[in-house]
Amino acid sequence: MPEQEDGNKGVTIVGGGLVGSLLAVSLGQRGLRVHLHESRSDIRRAAGVSGGRSINLALSRRGREALRAVGLEDEVLSTAIPMRARMIHPLSGNQYSIPYGTKRDDCIYSVNRRALNELLLTKAEESPNISIHFESRLLQADLETNTLVFSDGATGKKTVQTEFVFGCDGAHSTVRRQMMRWGRLNYQQEYIQHGYRELTMPPTPSGDFAMEPNFLHIWPHHKFMMIALPNHDKSFTLTLLMPCSVFESIRNEYSLLAFFQAHFPHSINKIGVEHLYKDYFANPQGKMISVKCSPHFMAGNTLILGDAAHAVVPFYGQGMNAGFEDCLVLTECLTESGGELAAAAQLYQDNHWSDTHTICDLSMYNYIEMRSHVTSPLFLIRKRIDNALHYLFPSLFIPLYSMVAFTRIPYRRVVERHNVQQTVIRRGLWGLSLASLGLLGYLIFKFSGMEVALRHRILPCVFKCVVNNYLRH
Amino acid sequence: MPEQEDGNKGVTIVGGGLVGSLLAVSLGQRGLRVHLHESRSDIRRAAGVSGGRSINLALSRRGREALRAVGLEDEVLSTAIPMRARMIHPLSGNQYSIPYGTKRDDCIYSVNRRALNELLLTKAEESPNISIHFESRLLQADLETNTLVFSDGATGKKTVQTEFVFGCDGAHSTVRRQMMRWGRLNYQQEYIQHGYRELTMPPTPSGDFAMEPNFLHIWPHHKFMMIALPNHDKSFTLTLLMPCSVFESIRNEYSLLAFFQAHFPHSINKIGVEHLYKDYFANPQGKMISVKCSPHFMAGNTLILGDAAHAVVPFYGQGMNAGFEDCLVLTECLTESGGELAAAAQLYQDNHWSDTHTICDLSMYNYIEMRSHVTSPLFLIRKRIDNALHYLFPSLFIPLYSMVAFTRIPYRRVVERHNVQQTVIRRGLWGLSLASLGLLGYLIFKFSGMEVALRHRILPCVFKCVVNNYLRH
Repeated sequence: MPEQEDGNKGVTIVGGGLVGSLLAVSLGQRGLRVHLHESRSDIRRAAGVSGGRSINLALSRRGREALRAVGLEDEVLSTAIPMRARMIHPLSGNQYSIPYGTKRDDCIYSVNRRALNELLLTKAEESPNISIHFESRLLQADLETNTLVFSDGATGKKTVQTEFVFGCDGAHSTVRRQMMRWGRLNYQQEYIQHGYRELTMPPTPSGDFAMEPNFLHIWPHHKFMMIALPNHDKSFTLTLLMPCSVFESIRNEYSLLAFFQAHFPHSINKIGVEHLYKDYFANPQGKMISVKCSPHFMAGNTLILGDAAHAVVPFYGQGMNAGFEDCLVLTECLTESGGELAAAAQLYQDNHWSDTHTICDLSMYNYIEMRSHVTSPLFLIRKRIDNALHYLFPSLFIPLYSMVAFTRIPYRRVVERHNVQQTVIRRGLWGLSLASLGLLGYLIFKFSGMEVALRHRILPCVFKCVVNNYLRH
Repeated sequence: MPEQEDGNKGVTIVGGGLVGSLLAVSLGQRGLRVHLHESRSDIRRAAGVSGGRSINLALSRRGREALRAVGLEDEVLSTAIPMRARMIHPLSGNQYSIPYGTKRDDCIYSVNRRALNELLLTKAEESPNISIHFESRLLQADLETNTLVFSDGATGKKTVQTEFVFGCDGAHSTVRRQMMRWGRLNYQQEYIQHGYRELTMPPTPSGDFAMEPNFLHIWPHHKFMMIALPNHDKSFTLTLLMPCSVFESIRNEYSLLAFFQAHFPHSINKIGVEHLYKDYFANPQGKMISVKCSPHFMAGNTLILGDAAHAVVPFYGQGMNAGFEDCLVLTECLTESGGELAAAAQLYQDNHWSDTHTICDLSMYNYIEMRSHVTSPLFLIRKRIDNALHYLFPSLFIPLYSMVAFTRIPYRRVVERHNVQQTVIRRGLWGLSLASLGLLGYLIFKFSGMEVALRHRILPCVFKCVVNNYLRH
């Protein structure tokens, strides 16, 4: 069985997307011999965008820390555009913003997927420890013998012996499929009813952004929505998210224009009718899948990370960030295990996998929040209360979104902590309203001369009911 | 592309196990041209048992009705052994029984898997509408063009055009895998930590059953358990269900005997030490998977039934029954749709798929109930209350187990109804205990001379709290 070219087995990373290439850089810096296999050709040499993937992504704390760990944070942020708040565009046209956090640094960054991937591949290539193999698609893996079969050219095959396999090959991961064949993998995949298409809002004729750039723009419509992220070239990338049946009902330019006039009237001029027609009918329609599985580590030599282990729907903007954090957690585990790969992977599995299930659930929840709740006055009040409490008790009370986007608190603990915070708020509000009601009642009784009855008969009764209620919420 | 031998496309059933062969009989009786493909050779001509599958199964109402619909119920029941109750064998040896229901007909039947499968294949073969193809394994399916590729002999392949595909090919279904490739299949698989091994308890030297035959015997041990079902030849088939790690810890005859002496001491003599050693180390260890997916109907021409659509863990004894009911529901849908296959399958999908998710959940729940709850006095009291209520109000109140095993109420409605019933019982018990407490309190106060205080101050207070509590439960 031929070994890899340099006669050194090393570790193999399957998938040279964002997570795979970051992992390569990270493991290379630790002195490991890394072979990175990517099924596509080198994106730095290909024209056009890679089909079916979003053009820009929101980078937040977890992703930034992972980039910082390999010394790339500043370089990435230098071309990224900060977004400090959501900008909501209701049908009426009266737009308003909802800040992401309370501090100046509480912002997420719009980054270009392709530029980031190219940067990571270039950094990986600079390392003498890392070999990148393009057009090398995993066909089969024997987890028992650490033997991988990759495609080689159009029809050839090459067999590779390796010490350890990292599966970073995305939501439809081949490594994961081989794990399912090998052993007991608990697995769950769920397609959501919505598909998406990307559109472009070009810069104005004067060469400026057509909308305010430092926002993530949202057009919420309950059953569907559109979002927009700014690009470095002063355009916006819009993503139209709708049930597939609605996409199917729009078959020609006439019905597309009618649809936009009815639902996104204020965006048409900014996009431009010609642009709208071209993008809508030329761009592929993406579908969205949520994947959970466990374990992520199997056979003592195979670990999956990123979308391969936990594909999330994009509504929390955490897909890339969670994948990057996987790399960071793994290197932390490597440090803890003294560089022993299998021990580090086991540590990673024991402590980290359930966090990835939580971010899948949170993303699914935000799928509803983003297209519906953002228009509810109650939601806006709650956000204000959250932000006020965070302002008053910055380390004690952190809003859910801030914990997800602006901290590295493990996702599972984020949700536990959020639930405790919500209980405290709910009890506080109950206590407050009951106390006000009691005071009001007391004043009424006092001035109507029924104070004695109140003190001796009604108050003890109310007191008991209040205590009862209070303990239950 | 060569068509099937008789030049008539007809429908194709993939899988000639219990569900596939019953479906063939059922569709054949409706006049459809049926091709049944089974990957194994003809079990009627092979010696020995088929590996990795349980030897006997519990047949209950749903399965019986499906067999009755094709005129086979009486024939199957003639060799089946009725089981009227669970017989619990605690470590102490003081066995006791828990009846399955309140009526004489409320029993489940121990049937031999192989004999039942053979009977169904023979009945299928008798129909001129049905062709059975053995050693014909599905390799690939093109759902777009209704083209299936089957293995033909050891290395050959045959391509088949069909009008409709029924996937009855079990928990690791190839048809389902092809559906996942074709379109959006929401899918979930979960392995449980327990494996199982089958043992045999032979008849006594005098040729009789070694235990009372009309029971499903259970040795509950919280973390593991053993069950036994009677066979027609007066033996029992025992199934030992334990965490895989416990199986792995038993490596030789010495540790096996020590294990049985510690946990199943009263069964050793009945099994016989030699039998125990032989069966335990010779029989394969099965693993258990729970599978849910949706939709079951796809591409206008492919429907999965039985384990292929909803593999359940065996703890409710509903795997075969739910699969047989699938066939019955499908024929009911065919009647409703005037024999139009795609319309019937759509009707089946719309009304039936969520029931199959419910039986997966119920079976998982019983996984705990069978090995733990059956030893709790509280559980026994609850069963008695349930049975008493069912006896008093036979059509109004039906215990959960009875609804699952002895009715054809759809599984989803079974759970809804069970929840309502439990709420009524809980409220009734609350009301009853509070009323008794109140009466007791009244009597104490009356005879201690504090009646006035009670009437004017304490009672109104208590009343409010009671109402409050009562409304919340």
